[in-house]
Amino acid sequence: MPERIVELPTHWRRRVAIDRIEPDVDGGRFPVKRVRGDEVVIEADIVCDGHDELDCRLHVRHGDSGQWTDMPLVCTGNDRWRASFIADRIGGWNFFVTARVDAFATWRRDLGRRMEAPDAAAELPLELAAGARIVEAAAHAAPPAIAEEISQFAVRLRGPVWREALADPRLATLVSRYADRRDETRLEPVRTIWVDRARARFSSWYELFPRSWATEPGAHGTLADVADRLDYVARMGFDVLYLPPIHPIGTSFRKGQNNALAAGPDDVGSPWAIGGVDGGHTAIHPQLGTFADFERLRSRAEALGMELALDLAVQCSPDHPWVREHPEWFRRRADGSIRYAENPPKKYQDIVPFDFACPAWEALWQALLEVVLFWVGEGVKIFRVDNPHTKPFAFWEWLIAEVRRDHPDVLFLSEAFTRPKTMFRLAKLGFTQSYTYFTWRTGKEETADYLTEVTTPPLADCFRPAFWPNTPDILHATLQEGGRPMFEVRLALAALSVGTWGIYGPAMELLEAEPSKPGSEEYLD
Amino acid sequence: MPERIVELPTHWRRRVAIDRIEPDVDGGRFPVKRVRGDEVVIEADIVCDGHDELDCRLHVRHGDSGQWTDMPLVCTGNDRWRASFIADRIGGWNFFVTARVDAFATWRRDLGRRMEAPDAAAELPLELAAGARIVEAAAHAAPPAIAEEISQFAVRLRGPVWREALADPRLATLVSRYADRRDETRLEPVRTIWVDRARARFSSWYELFPRSWATEPGAHGTLADVADRLDYVARMGFDVLYLPPIHPIGTSFRKGQNNALAAGPDDVGSPWAIGGVDGGHTAIHPQLGTFADFERLRSRAEALGMELALDLAVQCSPDHPWVREHPEWFRRRADGSIRYAENPPKKYQDIVPFDFACPAWEALWQALLEVVLFWVGEGVKIFRVDNPHTKPFAFWEWLIAEVRRDHPDVLFLSEAFTRPKTMFRLAKLGFTQSYTYFTWRTGKEETADYLTEVTTPPLADCFRPAFWPNTPDILHATLQEGGRPMFEVRLALAALSVGTWGIYGPAMELLEAEPSKPGSEEYLD
Repeated sequence: MPERIVELPTHWRRRVAIDRIEPDVDGGRFPVKRVRGDEVVIEADIVCDGHDELDCRLHVRHGDSGQWTDMPLVCTGNDRWRASFIADRIGGWNFFVTARVDAFATWRRDLGRRMEAPDAAAELPLELAAGARIVEAAAHAAPPAIAEEISQFAVRLRGPVWREALADPRLATLVSRYADRRDETRLEPVRTIWVDRARARFSSWYELFPRSWATEPGAHGTLADVADRLDYVARMGFDVLYLPPIHPIGTSFRKGQNNALAAGPDDVGSPWAIGGVDGGHTAIHPQLGTFADFERLRSRAEALGMELALDLAVQCSPDHPWVREHPEWFRRRADGSIRYAENPPKKYQDIVPFDFACPAWEALWQALLEVVLFWVGEGVKIFRVDNPHTKPFAFWEWLIAEVRRDHPDVLFLSEAFTRPKTMFRLAKLGFTQSYTYFTWRTGKEETADYLTEVTTPPLADCFRPAFWPNTPDILHATLQEGGRPMFEVRLALAALSVGTWGIYGPAMELLEAEPSKPGSEEYLD
Repeated sequence: MPERIVELPTHWRRRVAIDRIEPDVDGGRFPVKRVRGDEVVIEADIVCDGHDELDCRLHVRHGDSGQWTDMPLVCTGNDRWRASFIADRIGGWNFFVTARVDAFATWRRDLGRRMEAPDAAAELPLELAAGARIVEAAAHAAPPAIAEEISQFAVRLRGPVWREALADPRLATLVSRYADRRDETRLEPVRTIWVDRARARFSSWYELFPRSWATEPGAHGTLADVADRLDYVARMGFDVLYLPPIHPIGTSFRKGQNNALAAGPDDVGSPWAIGGVDGGHTAIHPQLGTFADFERLRSRAEALGMELALDLAVQCSPDHPWVREHPEWFRRRADGSIRYAENPPKKYQDIVPFDFACPAWEALWQALLEVVLFWVGEGVKIFRVDNPHTKPFAFWEWLIAEVRRDHPDVLFLSEAFTRPKTMFRLAKLGFTQSYTYFTWRTGKEETADYLTEVTTPPLADCFRPAFWPNTPDILHATLQEGGRPMFEVRLALAALSVGTWGIYGPAMELLEAEPSKPGSEEYLD
């Protein structure tokens, strides 16, 4: 027979296998989402060869530098083990599961069974000696005083008082605490649970354009106007007031009313064409008001039990200060000119996208992070993110983690009306809530199917659906044609189906149903 | 604002995400099982930000030192991508999936769309220049002669012959072959597919005790007797002849007929009490015959289109040579005596188990491996493994891999009548086929449910069920009471439901239905 070298399986000592952990998002690659106060239930399949007793434990900590605590998992049948804890703080929690053969518990169990054998009395001294050896092994890892206490237990187990020694709960505690854990199987990788405040799960959004909230017809509405009329929104029961971008708007290639390619002199432009002579993402459009007005609106909302949500649109108008100050952050064409946003053959010349992979990407990403932190500093803790699916996944994963490190109470709503798996990916990498297809699910069955899909684990462990019957961009045909009853149906469905819903007002409650043109989903004016 | 250092996400350049690969056994921890000739279909979810064209590829090789080949994955809708290959050789195959943004394909697609815009002609030179830059980038990674060819394409794209250059299939081939792949996303870990010969999936087993096949009543049957009557088995259509252990049997604590605790002088003992004065796991019981008889039986089987399967029982009788030669491989009690197999309060004193974690484990594991290799050397390529669930998982994973490294045609049937998840674990770690609960699934619904469970992926990707209506240990009540029709029903169900089935003969075809005692599942005599 040829000579053969034994190749050692690295972890061959670990007899216990841990498997099928739940909840789970992609094998631990992404965090599971929960909210504060939830009982977090962890389950796993745990199997071992033979019939030994197992010691299975859930290890949990809050925060990267938190103290690990552990608790036993309990078998609920069919080799499924379970433990739970209350997530009483927001932020990141870590957990992992360990399992080992519990030699002491196995011996104690078998001793009881052996006593039933006919030759039990004759065998007893040898069996007690076997137990004493297991107990003595625990003494090796204990500090001296405890080691002495453990050794005394071993001595007593070998003598006439073995029953009393065995009945002492202190024995099991000590042997478990100082057991040799080198053979312990540990589930890899350490998993994360991201715990949000309750509003991440339950929130009712009201979206409005402040410029449309002037008290006088034809005037440009202001933040002050909104603050003055905020009780109207609060009385309807909303708890999040979402404002589309409130920043200065570019004038180059400004779009006119109803998406006309050229703006008239009085056209205000799209708020998503961010940046002009008055500043960029950290400025407020002068026609909307001042930072003092903003702060008054924020406090007024807070007083009414509401919270402000701002839009985060990671793009610029050609007039944004950054286009001049940081030309290296944008895409260039062969002649050096800037490349506008486009979806060929369509061009969006009022928008220039960032080049996230430009050589100066570090400064760019940092600047965008600082935009978010700036508004967090102004008291904004909710961001509705515009079109996140057209920016790299890694950028969002990084940005959200950076913001949350010091501000775990910040929430992000993903406005990704795109393909389902891209929507889910954005949720996995950190977005708190996500816009959905609800707006287009109007039949009974398709609505029920969709509701089931987005509220069933494992998807529901990372994806929190937001149901919106309308948005400034979307006036669904059912609303155009269905009249008041359909508005009521869609509003009730959105509000009652999932934890988070919202409307674009006052178009919704005023039953605005006129499309920009027949067959279109866009609002007129 | 406090200063803040940007922390780089390691793989931020990789814009494409790969997800939900199938087939999959525990995230790639274990191999997927297939048989030679199968079309192996690989699918994955692949998503990217934006709307760029993707280049997604499946990379496959046979064997650890094989040559990688790659082929494109094709999108089948909803961001699901798919490729397949024929597994035309047995052994281990590896695969992984890569995906990247295909800048050239994206540019070419967009160029077509841009030509529809009203200002297309004016824009064309700049767009062609953009494409030429992408083509030039591929030249960097190409060898000089090819780089020159690629550069010429770039020159032509900038000139009046751009249409011809673009239409040349050589351009796309070269740009793809030498594309910058640093931004490529690669699925980790590399996955394994274990490809068996067809008998792993389709086999019909006939189990017999050679000692019961004597031609004269009361005589001890031999391997020669079996060889002489093998056409009887072959005519029934079986293609695997499974022999329980054929090794010398211990005499200490030998069990008598019908599991009597004490054997009479003529009792032959349990064949699973392996080892005696005549040798251990690599010897043949003298009353069964010689190695020449064994070889004749093996050739005879081969001539009849059948294959021998031996039993692998990793345990010893107290008389096994190893008990004397290697006392360090067995468990000891406090007084130095050997510890017999037991399931307290029951004792099995004719069996001594190995201590797989003894300090001399390396030599022990190696010796057990050599037992298998010894019989492989004798032409045995199928092993029915006795009670694998009472030995460490790691041992089996190691043993099976070691055997298969040089003998990928060796098959292992797991006789683990234990808890479902332990049975599945053994299948995952390498057992080719597995005994099942079929024997006890006799109602219509429970049989259908069980059949669905064990033949549905992902379980079916690693678990190959074997259906046995009876075994030497199990004479189910339905057979005891159901008469010939029930024997026929159970046999037909076993043979027709799954790819692998077997019977214990001639008890099955002779309709033996007498239990050892009423209410028992054991055969009399």
